[in-house]
Amino acid sequence: MIKVVAKGYVKAGEVEKFKEYAAELVKESKKEEENISYGLYQDTSNPQILTFIEEWKDQAALDQHMKTPHFVRIFAELGKLQEKETDINIYNLAI
Amino acid sequence: MIKVVAKGYVKAGEVEKFKEYAAELVKESKKEEENISYGLYQDTSNPQILTFIEEWKDQAALDQHMKTPHFVRIFAELGKLQEKETDINIYNLAI
Repeated sequence: MIKVVAKGYVKAGEVEKFKEYAAELVKESKKEEENISYGLYQDTSNPQILTFIEEWKDQAALDQHMKTPHFVRIFAELGKLQEKETDINIYNLAI
Repeated sequence: MIKVVAKGYVKAGEVEKFKEYAAELVKESKKEEENISYGLYQDTSNPQILTFIEEWKDQAALDQHMKTPHFVRIFAELGKLQEKETDINIYNLAI
């Protein structure tokens, strides 16, 4: 299992639009066979920080996901709504 | 449910010591009644990035956790092993 934390810094006024695109990405990604979990989380003190936290069977499953039409299309749209680049970390469970 | 992502930047050579302290913190925190999950994750491309990803019943449960003797003691030790401050985000599920 690998875990992805993709932290987005969304432009003021674009949060709702970001969530609309995110809802579609979450829905489509959860259909992928090797997805374990996929959610969008909003920071409790800064609503412009919106972070995808995802779990995938393995790196190959994540690589596959990042080639899907829905990911490629929506990730590009999400990028337009952000102040700076997404802060992405891919993790293995250590403890 | 709230989710915490606490991203640590550990000094080179201190990763194993960080993990030892983290193992104790994970073990003790999981005993807390209102903890849902608590794990330490290591970045697949940078082993010095070690991140706690936690789930708590609510903010009050997290506040309580951060007052426990084990958290206070171990969090201070972990801090000494880091290059810079922990990057902490507290999240609500949005989608």
